[in-house]
Amino acid sequence: MEMKRILGGYSKKVGLVPGTIVHVGEQKTEKPGITLVSYDRKSFAEKVVDNVEDCFARDKSAVTWINVDGVHQAEVVEKIGMHFGLHPLVMEDILHTDQRAKMEDYGSYIYIVLKMLRFDDPDAGIDEEQVSLILGQGFVLSFQEAEGDTFDPVRERLRRSKGRIRSLDASYLAYSLMDSIVDNYFVVLENISEIIETVENELIENPASETLGNIHELKKEIIYLRRSVWPLRDVISGLERSGSPLIADSTMVYLKDIYDHTIRVVDTIETYRDVITGIMDLYLSSVSNKMNEVMKTLTIIATVFIPLTFVAGIYGMNFEHMPELHWKWGYPGVWIIIIVTSAAMYMYFRNKKWI
Amino acid sequence: MEMKRILGGYSKKVGLVPGTIVHVGEQKTEKPGITLVSYDRKSFAEKVVDNVEDCFARDKSAVTWINVDGVHQAEVVEKIGMHFGLHPLVMEDILHTDQRAKMEDYGSYIYIVLKMLRFDDPDAGIDEEQVSLILGQGFVLSFQEAEGDTFDPVRERLRRSKGRIRSLDASYLAYSLMDSIVDNYFVVLENISEIIETVENELIENPASETLGNIHELKKEIIYLRRSVWPLRDVISGLERSGSPLIADSTMVYLKDIYDHTIRVVDTIETYRDVITGIMDLYLSSVSNKMNEVMKTLTIIATVFIPLTFVAGIYGMNFEHMPELHWKWGYPGVWIIIIVTSAAMYMYFRNKKWI
Amino acid sequence: MEMKRILGGYSKKVGLVPGTIVHVGEQKTEKPGITLVSYDRKSFAEKVVDNVEDCFARDKSAVTWINVDGVHQAEVVEKIGMHFGLHPLVMEDILHTDQRAKMEDYGSYIYIVLKMLRFDDPDAGIDEEQVSLILGQGFVLSFQEAEGDTFDPVRERLRRSKGRIRSLDASYLAYSLMDSIVDNYFVVLENISEIIETVENELIENPASETLGNIHELKKEIIYLRRSVWPLRDVISGLERSGSPLIADSTMVYLKDIYDHTIRVVDTIETYRDVITGIMDLYLSSVSNKMNEVMKTLTIIATVFIPLTFVAGIYGMNFEHMPELHWKWGYPGVWIIIIVTSAAMYMYFRNKKWI
Amino acid sequence: MEMKRILGGYSKKVGLVPGTIVHVGEQKTEKPGITLVSYDRKSFAEKVVDNVEDCFARDKSAVTWINVDGVHQAEVVEKIGMHFGLHPLVMEDILHTDQRAKMEDYGSYIYIVLKMLRFDDPDAGIDEEQVSLILGQGFVLSFQEAEGDTFDPVRERLRRSKGRIRSLDASYLAYSLMDSIVDNYFVVLENISEIIETVENELIENPASETLGNIHELKKEIIYLRRSVWPLRDVISGLERSGSPLIADSTMVYLKDIYDHTIRVVDTIETYRDVITGIMDLYLSSVSNKMNEVMKTLTIIATVFIPLTFVAGIYGMNFEHMPELHWKWGYPGVWIIIIVTSAAMYMYFRNKKWI
Amino acid sequence: MEMKRILGGYSKKVGLVPGTIVHVGEQKTEKPGITLVSYDRKSFAEKVVDNVEDCFARDKSAVTWINVDGVHQAEVVEKIGMHFGLHPLVMEDILHTDQRAKMEDYGSYIYIVLKMLRFDDPDAGIDEEQVSLILGQGFVLSFQEAEGDTFDPVRERLRRSKGRIRSLDASYLAYSLMDSIVDNYFVVLENISEIIETVENELIENPASETLGNIHELKKEIIYLRRSVWPLRDVISGLERSGSPLIADSTMVYLKDIYDHTIRVVDTIETYRDVITGIMDLYLSSVSNKMNEVMKTLTIIATVFIPLTFVAGIYGMNFEHMPELHWKWGYPGVWIIIIVTSAAMYMYFRNKKWI
Repeated sequence: MEMKRILGGYSKKVGLVPGTIVHVGEQKTEKPGITLVSYDRKSFAEKVVDNVEDCFARDKSAVTWINVDGVHQAEVVEKIGMHFGLHPLVMEDILHTDQRAKMEDYGSYIYIVLKMLRFDDPDAGIDEEQVSLILGQGFVLSFQEAEGDTFDPVRERLRRSKGRIRSLDASYLAYSLMDSIVDNYFVVLENISEIIETVENELIENPASETLGNIHELKKEIIYLRRSVWPLRDVISGLERSGSPLIADSTMVYLKDIYDHTIRVVDTIETYRDVITGIMDLYLSSVSNKMNEVMKTLTIIATVFIPLTFVAGIYGMNFEHMPELHWKWGYPGVWIIIIVTSAAMYMYFRNKKWI
Repeated sequence: MEMKRILGGYSKKVGLVPGTIVHVGEQKTEKPGITLVSYDRKSFAEKVVDNVEDCFARDKSAVTWINVDGVHQAEVVEKIGMHFGLHPLVMEDILHTDQRAKMEDYGSYIYIVLKMLRFDDPDAGIDEEQVSLILGQGFVLSFQEAEGDTFDPVRERLRRSKGRIRSLDASYLAYSLMDSIVDNYFVVLENISEIIETVENELIENPASETLGNIHELKKEIIYLRRSVWPLRDVISGLERSGSPLIADSTMVYLKDIYDHTIRVVDTIETYRDVITGIMDLYLSSVSNKMNEVMKTLTIIATVFIPLTFVAGIYGMNFEHMPELHWKWGYPGVWIIIIVTSAAMYMYFRNKKWI
Repeated sequence: MEMKRILGGYSKKVGLVPGTIVHVGEQKTEKPGITLVSYDRKSFAEKVVDNVEDCFARDKSAVTWINVDGVHQAEVVEKIGMHFGLHPLVMEDILHTDQRAKMEDYGSYIYIVLKMLRFDDPDAGIDEEQVSLILGQGFVLSFQEAEGDTFDPVRERLRRSKGRIRSLDASYLAYSLMDSIVDNYFVVLENISEIIETVENELIENPASETLGNIHELKKEIIYLRRSVWPLRDVISGLERSGSPLIADSTMVYLKDIYDHTIRVVDTIETYRDVITGIMDLYLSSVSNKMNEVMKTLTIIATVFIPLTFVAGIYGMNFEHMPELHWKWGYPGVWIIIIVTSAAMYMYFRNKKWI
Repeated sequence: MEMKRILGGYSKKVGLVPGTIVHVGEQKTEKPGITLVSYDRKSFAEKVVDNVEDCFARDKSAVTWINVDGVHQAEVVEKIGMHFGLHPLVMEDILHTDQRAKMEDYGSYIYIVLKMLRFDDPDAGIDEEQVSLILGQGFVLSFQEAEGDTFDPVRERLRRSKGRIRSLDASYLAYSLMDSIVDNYFVVLENISEIIETVENELIENPASETLGNIHELKKEIIYLRRSVWPLRDVISGLERSGSPLIADSTMVYLKDIYDHTIRVVDTIETYRDVITGIMDLYLSSVSNKMNEVMKTLTIIATVFIPLTFVAGIYGMNFEHMPELHWKWGYPGVWIIIIVTSAAMYMYFRNKKWI
Repeated sequence: MEMKRILGGYSKKVGLVPGTIVHVGEQKTEKPGITLVSYDRKSFAEKVVDNVEDCFARDKSAVTWINVDGVHQAEVVEKIGMHFGLHPLVMEDILHTDQRAKMEDYGSYIYIVLKMLRFDDPDAGIDEEQVSLILGQGFVLSFQEAEGDTFDPVRERLRRSKGRIRSLDASYLAYSLMDSIVDNYFVVLENISEIIETVENELIENPASETLGNIHELKKEIIYLRRSVWPLRDVISGLERSGSPLIADSTMVYLKDIYDHTIRVVDTIETYRDVITGIMDLYLSSVSNKMNEVMKTLTIIATVFIPLTFVAGIYGMNFEHMPELHWKWGYPGVWIIIIVTSAAMYMYFRNKKWI
């Protein structure tokens, strides 16, 4: 994980006029794609729009959902923003893709920033995409950094009129979109849980020194994830408590449900953190244990043979007057000393539970 | 402990319509068993019901308790839910057995999710079963994942009219069920305390490297337990503060009592955490101490014999002109050097408190 | 310290009807002893009562204090409870001696649970005794697990009419009893502070491996103590804020004073925790330092003599053609090599600050 | 980083009368430079002022911004303070450049202290400069310790009438100045993130012992930074909640934006702290791993050759009666023993995964 | 630091009647010295009083300040207390010099306990002296444990009528006294910061094992300091919020200032804690690093010479049939083997970056 991912591109916009409609962040798609969905209980229309202005003639009795993939073309966001009367700071934040998740109630619309997470490739780390939602009277605007999202189930339900979605208002649509994003967190968490398990098994079976780097990377991923997810709680509870007339009473129960899910996500991440700290400790201890084993081996060999070598050394001396050398039982005697000493040492190590 | 236990089956329901009545979780029993209990101060009836609809003709002046073992058959839950007017999200949550403990006041009924814990087999870890309670006007519904529960003492008290249970209302029944679940936590905690003590003794007597793995597993169990139990506090205090007319005043004192118990459970788990951290430190230190002892042995042997071997090596050289070799007292002299050196070394180690 | 002490005997009462008047806990005395004290500004009466009923004829204008030593005879508690109109749950809690310290206002009386600590024998650890106080209109009931308590100074003050105690009401008596319990905590803390100092000195003078176990035990004692003392704060501040008419205004100032003391106790325990963590670190570091010293000794000896032994080994070889062996100055030359090498090594180690 | 930087120069002013207008802190510039900017929607005037009094004739319908570089000349601050009716304590705080960031509402003006950070030179550490802002009716005063600031973009926008700044009131100017300071924090954070990444790479490639010192320094920088930035949150939220009439409603939205930024800064610093702790652990583990590797090498060499040397030693003995010495296959036999032993050892180490 | 300093002398007063006017604590001066200061805008009188009663005839229109050095003579405190109508518990607390800093509003007077710190001698640790302030209508009483205080600058300002002190009321005098105490904390902190820096340098230059003890002592000092200083925040904010008529509005701004200072003190102590933890880690790592270096030296020497010694040992054997011994190039061949092996080893270590 690169450190800069944590900071985001904030430093790039230093010195700009607040409210400047300029894209800050990595460009993730080539051409922005705009989709317009319009539905009520009976009808449903969906079309890809080339020209932004085509979205603006909307049927006020239906629910309109405009989705923009790719926010790097500032003028698209600006035109839409102008039309729907968004505050310049909102437009700035939509374009500036390094926001924390947040919720701001501007009275005639609510601005919600969420992070869509993807964790397809363990090596690449968690991929974060900013999704901005604008919930207004009868419309929802959604801005994403790139194509590809978690909204397909929602689209499907709209098309097939599955569930109650077509009979409910825009706030339920906004809820559905948020729910699909939060649900996807569980997929990310599941991937991480698999990696944790892999690392844990690796550790028990064969703690190589690469394992350490993996644990460190994992830890950083979780620090990063935690940081993305924490503000989510405030977003959802902020929506619950906002008392905005834009949120239908029937939607409130669903917000409670989504709140439960975010709590669960946050909870799980905290637990992962604890588990990873435990794994780190386990790793260090197992390294320490292996060292111990190495040391024991050395010590056993050395303490057995060094004294014996000394004995051999004694009788390798060339003194003229060394009576033992001429004894008949001298040599076997040395062997007896050797065997007895070794046996004694063996008993000693046995006793100490080193063997 | 498998990592996925922490996450639960959330990822499986990604993309489903919120409020979809589909079972998510492990199926723990084959056929759902439904029991209907109905009582007032004078009468008591208990029967096993095959057909869900048989439960619905209830005497409004008596207290009705419907218990469902096994929630994987969505239609059973759905029928009951329909009859008692439960919100689709409640039905979803009953079926989705990876909820956090929570309490939701829907006005005409209160929805409570609790975790029934079992810790029969230390190797298998703590077994968690979700229990959903619905407290309504004159009735309590309870949904469990599997047969076998902690409710038997309550049933017994109902049958034998022990205590005041038969003369009190449905909220006291709900309290009794919750109390039996929380009481059972103490059994789990006692099991864990025994394991901690075992590990601790193992550690002091013979800290093998398996001990480490055991400590790690224990730590994970406690992290897991902690996570299950923490939300309980909020559930009980939520009930206390809800001011719902469904909870009789006479039940309030009992809720306070159950709250004390949950505080005690949470407290004990926190203490266990601290103790286990201490055990971990103790383990690491004792490994470090043993290493130290090993090193000392090696050092003593090596520092005594390496110089002596050098002396022997000197007089093992084959120089023509080595006057000492021809001295009469050469060989005994070497022995004197050896003995004096050894004694000096011994004093030195003694002094350093290595021996 | 046994792990179960942390949990207490909760698991034993699983399945009992809430409010069952059954003793749960260790029996600490044989026969319950009941003392009845009755006083007002002018008179003072004190007697040991054999029959519970003898306590019940009390003078409503005087302050009555009934003290029960030994709560294992449930019927004694039950009779008293019946007479004074205590809630079944209160009677249950009096008998169940593993409560957390707590305060419950039942309107006509206040129920207070405190822990009387004793730490006479460092090996046995802290001994905890549950004291239940009932403060009612004109009376105080106190229930202890065993004989022997910290109330003697209060009795003395009552007998001798020292201070204002005789001229004040029952709430002042309750305060005095609580104060005597909290004051005794300082004695326990002083004992612990002495042990900490002993361990600390032991550590600096001669860190044996037993020290580690001692530190661990000490840490557990403090975890345990902390857990007993924390809820005390809430008890006292609960009394202060209760606004109960049972607590005279003149007593409120004294409650503030006792609150200061509990804060001080909690504070001191936290500090002890920090100090012990520091001691643990110190121990580990000093072990690590000693290891370092051992290693240095080994390394110095080995690095000096191993090369020298090699030199001796060279000239111990039996090759026919080894010109050095026949040089006149060969042997002295080897000694020169040995001395020069040793001196160089000495300089090197000196330079590295190993010697 | 010097430790005293943490404390600041507080100790120097001990004993002074509170409200004494004396500069405390390092003098960072020679001569204070005063700039007067005055603007409204149509006009803009900017001049460098030599004499403080020249600033005082201001057009009340325009917004006046007086910026002072260098606060060590107390009389300049005093004169301005007198003219604008500042409290002596405010003047003292302006001169005393070791304040925490804070916000004080004095009714007719708001006093804001911020820290302008610079991190140009990694070796010198983060450079902190105190900026005091006074927001009054129609004027903003800013006091800096030295020349050179982050205000240039604001000046530029004023001069060129970019954005809405010229058409808004003094509170927007104050916001713009604060925003430029907070924006600059991201530049500092980016520099730190680069250093973290460098250290991390250094660690993985070649963990020298200097790395440790670098990590320690980095940690201290982050502790220091954290301490500067934490109070910022309270400053901004204090402004948001103050309800002061000096802050225009249109500015409130911008304060929310700046608040988001400070949260993000604080967040990032916390994440850095976690990452650095992780790096520290990684370092210690990698040192431990290297030690392990060293030990393994020693152990392998020693355990292979020590026994072999012993064998050679045996047959180097000079006993008269050593039959093996006269065997024809004695010498080859020794070689066979040597080869077999070595091979066995190799297998053993292989098996243990030491090689 | 002695452990008992943390606890204080609480255990000594166990069993005393609450409100007993008995000195508890170390006696720090021989004879209590009483000074009476009386001033208003125009006049100023200061005298040393031998007899307590001489203080009691005070001019109600002037501000009276009675300072008592040495509180061990209970009767002095009692007489003053009686005269000014202090509560017995206040008198007890004045005499009992182990209070936490606290603030109590008794309506007609405010009782403030502060800790005056001194840190003259690094070996002796921080010296704490309890100062009790009583702020009443037109008077301030101050009680110290010993002579010598931080009040001299205040006295000087009173005598010379410097600043506004003479024209303001008693609450400003109380503020001035508190301010002088808090200001002195910065002096203590500066001393500590110097010690930290010394230890840090010591660590980098030559980490001896004494360093560890020093770090431990330093840590304990900071734990102790922290504990003294934390309650200060509550004292000051308690005064700010008390709304007591005894505190003039003009004094409120100054309390805010003093509050800022206490925050800064607390903040600095927290930072010191973090820094010392960092130093501890640094120490442990540097010990570990040195160990590593020692081990490397040993390993290099041993792995080079042990195999060579083996080679020498081989040709030191006395087998009859050892053809190499008779080769002409045998001896030079051995040297070639030795040189080649050494060179190879050198390359290997080089490669491993051990050399």
